Amino acid sequence: MACALLAALGLAAGPAHAAPAPAPAAPAALPAGSLDPRLIGAIDDLVAANRVLAKEGILPGYGHVSMRSPTNPQRILISRSLAPGLVGATDIVELDLDCNPTIPGGPPLYLERFIHCSIYKARPDINAVLHAHTTYAIAFSASGTPMKPVVRAARILGPNGPPIFDIHKIALHTNLLINTREFGDAMAKAMGKSNVVLMTGHGMSVGETSIVRLVRAAEAIEQNGVVLTALKAAGGPISYVNEDDYSDDLSRAVNGEAREWKAQKAEVMRAP
Amino acid sequence: MACALLAALGLAAGPAHAAPAPAPAAPAALPAGSLDPRLIGAIDDLVAANRVLAKEGILPGYGHVSMRSPTNPQRILISRSLAPGLVGATDIVELDLDCNPTIPGGPPLYLERFIHCSIYKARPDINAVLHAHTTYAIAFSASGTPMKPVVRAARILGPNGPPIFDIHKIALHTNLLINTREFGDAMAKAMGKSNVVLMTGHGMSVGETSIVRLVRAAEAIEQNGVVLTALKAAGGPISYVNEDDYSDDLSRAVNGEAREWKAQKAEVMRAP
Amino acid sequence: MACALLAALGLAAGPAHAAPAPAPAAPAALPAGSLDPRLIGAIDDLVAANRVLAKEGILPGYGHVSMRSPTNPQRILISRSLAPGLVGATDIVELDLDCNPTIPGGPPLYLERFIHCSIYKARPDINAVLHAHTTYAIAFSASGTPMKPVVRAARILGPNGPPIFDIHKIALHTNLLINTREFGDAMAKAMGKSNVVLMTGHGMSVGETSIVRLVRAAEAIEQNGVVLTALKAAGGPISYVNEDDYSDDLSRAVNGEAREWKAQKAEVMRAP
Amino acid sequence: MACALLAALGLAAGPAHAAPAPAPAAPAALPAGSLDPRLIGAIDDLVAANRVLAKEGILPGYGHVSMRSPTNPQRILISRSLAPGLVGATDIVELDLDCNPTIPGGPPLYLERFIHCSIYKARPDINAVLHAHTTYAIAFSASGTPMKPVVRAARILGPNGPPIFDIHKIALHTNLLINTREFGDAMAKAMGKSNVVLMTGHGMSVGETSIVRLVRAAEAIEQNGVVLTALKAAGGPISYVNEDDYSDDLSRAVNGEAREWKAQKAEVMRAP
Repeated sequence: MACALLAALGLAAGPAHAAPAPAPAAPAALPAGSLDPRLIGAIDDLVAANRVLAKEGILPGYGHVSMRSPTNPQRILISRSLAPGLVGATDIVELDLDCNPTIPGGPPLYLERFIHCSIYKARPDINAVLHAHTTYAIAFSASGTPMKPVVRAARILGPNGPPIFDIHKIALHTNLLINTREFGDAMAKAMGKSNVVLMTGHGMSVGETSIVRLVRAAEAIEQNGVVLTALKAAGGPISYVNEDDYSDDLSRAVNGEAREWKAQKAEVMRAP
Repeated sequence: MACALLAALGLAAGPAHAAPAPAPAAPAALPAGSLDPRLIGAIDDLVAANRVLAKEGILPGYGHVSMRSPTNPQRILISRSLAPGLVGATDIVELDLDCNPTIPGGPPLYLERFIHCSIYKARPDINAVLHAHTTYAIAFSASGTPMKPVVRAARILGPNGPPIFDIHKIALHTNLLINTREFGDAMAKAMGKSNVVLMTGHGMSVGETSIVRLVRAAEAIEQNGVVLTALKAAGGPISYVNEDDYSDDLSRAVNGEAREWKAQKAEVMRAP
Repeated sequence: MACALLAALGLAAGPAHAAPAPAPAAPAALPAGSLDPRLIGAIDDLVAANRVLAKEGILPGYGHVSMRSPTNPQRILISRSLAPGLVGATDIVELDLDCNPTIPGGPPLYLERFIHCSIYKARPDINAVLHAHTTYAIAFSASGTPMKPVVRAARILGPNGPPIFDIHKIALHTNLLINTREFGDAMAKAMGKSNVVLMTGHGMSVGETSIVRLVRAAEAIEQNGVVLTALKAAGGPISYVNEDDYSDDLSRAVNGEAREWKAQKAEVMRAP
Repeated sequence: MACALLAALGLAAGPAHAAPAPAPAAPAALPAGSLDPRLIGAIDDLVAANRVLAKEGILPGYGHVSMRSPTNPQRILISRSLAPGLVGATDIVELDLDCNPTIPGGPPLYLERFIHCSIYKARPDINAVLHAHTTYAIAFSASGTPMKPVVRAARILGPNGPPIFDIHKIALHTNLLINTREFGDAMAKAMGKSNVVLMTGHGMSVGETSIVRLVRAAEAIEQNGVVLTALKAAGGPISYVNEDDYSDDLSRAVNGEAREWKAQKAEVMRAP
């Protein structure tokens, strides 16, 4: 029941003692490339990203991470509403860019999934998105000090630091969640051309060109927050990342080899 | 011997090699609803909360967490005197609102259990209570800076920060423990209508409408302490949680789905 | 070979495949009470304390912890030179108050064991000692700010904070270690009537009436360092522990029940 | 395929189900001492150092650690391009001081291996090198405050703190990596006679006389960063390590016994 997408692909296995459910015929809404190995690989990476980010405390229970489908840029892969540390392949569902599930009748979804849909819609260059309530994202969302990069791996923050979105600027008496298209679009608008948007008192949303870079970015942003706070608290001059570092194609290539990802994935995906 | 409540319910199992103790008849003091599945579910959640809070360092050995019985609002469920990380279902005992065990002759109890009884007595809206010695609760208990919320999930702190209870205002030469009804009532009086009270140099006591919200609140309060300290140390203006966020029914609904709780409970309750 | 004391007691077991060594007759130097269950219990607690403090990062590899023998106040129990996390019962050796092993020909000993001997000699009220290089002990050893208690569990620091011992005041061109009786005695002299002495740039030495209280004290001292640093960095007034809290017999009774110890010991002493 | 060096030594074992590859004859480029037990011991220590530093968060996925070969000072032992936490004996390769592998046709190498080669070439006294992106190395690389030692175990920082290398001083529009001999040599030149060089916004490179001392140094440098930041943030005078402590042969002998290393290695090298 929680395996809408994989079931449609004939890939979901029930527990050994359960009567096997017949694999449903692929619904017409499924893209032609659904059985593409790229899609299987993407789901595997998305599951790993959920678990890695949970283990690192970036998505300790709340928050979520998603990918743009590698076979159809109008589709989003994301877990059903579930703590990231518990996500497995059968929990991944497919949404369109309006945040509707492509297979109706599926499991409950994250209330704040509109964060993802609005970013993918506004930003064709972004292929992976996360929303997290990390400590230093919240700190700089509430600070007069911009979260400028002092750690080069965090250049994604941009030379002037990321924009800040305060939901109160567009609505009062909300439950603070980005639980409608309207709120999602307003957040994406505030994000603009940045890859990061801080959300006042709430957390951050981050987009990257790949999920491996996204995981690395989330780690680096939090490290940048620790470093910048330490430097501000200790006082004295601060050397921010050099303007030149933003100027070439290699500016985010630090994690080109994805060595860290390989180790992280190996750890969370090993058989129990 | 440590399983007064469950034994009374006929639910306590001795080790396989022990002569099985006959289940005692339910004493008259037990509420009629004792075998209610809600009570079993509550004990299961309370055990999980003990272990989750121990694992997270919120109740690393000292401190305690309790629930109001779901079948009788005049009864409290709490562990016998035991480190939270070791608590199992057979360690849960039942107290009345004066902190007397409903089944006499039970195991030793927490000396500071009066924290719980006094709060439940004074505050019918509170169904779960914890007392902890967390680092940032102590820091703000000793600071001239109120622990105002900068993290929305910590709005339970209240717009002006929680009240502070200093036991020295009512007694000198104490051993600092809330080990009498008098001290418990004084602390509950200082707490007033807040859901949090900081205790000078000692820690905090927190009450919530449910144990799941309580666990989430304790985490958010500590995160708020880290963020607020970072902001104060770094200097500059601070954006506290907007006044509007306190004004509606949804103000504490952030954890409505309890996704995090599901993951946390799964982790601590799995078979060894 | 590393089990001088237990071997003398006939308690050391070699590996199953080794030819059993005949238990040597108890040497004359061994106190009459050597087989006293109190001694066995003390060794068990000392092993647990080594492992608990290693696990908590207080003794992550360097540093050491010892006990006064419960059967002879002129004797000290301490591990041979070994990382605390690896210590087992057969690694415990017995020293006299001059730091000589009571059974000659034993294994190599900690170079800085004189810290322990000098404190036990000077302070009959102290029954357990540790030496650690914890981060906040070092910070306050190098600071003009006294490490005064803001956490009541850390009242052992004393109302004015602990004294600071700088080895350079008595010797230059040392290797910084307390590796002679002279250095040990100088450190104990600086400690005076305090239970804690900070050592400039090096760490701290702590003594308590029991090993359970000592473990709790070491944890509380580090927490106090975090809290006090946070308060100083954030600015504003600080409420130190009330003078009254030092005035009665109960002033260090917070951990009377040793609940935390029970949980800690259970975790590190379970069969692998 | 990833076991160039050990395969050449006839030591690489394929998985049980694989057809055993015939051990190639030792190529002429291999030094005569290749089968020397010192080399086997060095590889074992290097593997352990990779895993220990990964586990401690010093090399969490990126960064690398190497040794000068104990049998030929013109040779370097380092892992193929792999996350440190995953390194095993068959991943170790041998480089000459120009960073060319001594056995051609081997696996991909770290792009930044020139950090290591340039340091070994310039500094015959250094036998072990690491490059890491630790939080406080980055903080002090971007600060006007020199990273002077307040922790004696971190005296390797030097009395005035380590030099800082900013790659922008020699090249703009780089991808920031030390991925050529030119950049490596420039970094080693900035390092000069120090054992540590901070790299602006990037991390640090550290050299020591042995790999055990190197691991200890990396830990102490990070602890020194935490302590120094705490002292600066809290304000007031700071007692830096005494000048006298740099003046004798024993100045880095704190870890003479390598107790901590023994415990660390035991933990990471145990059979799974």
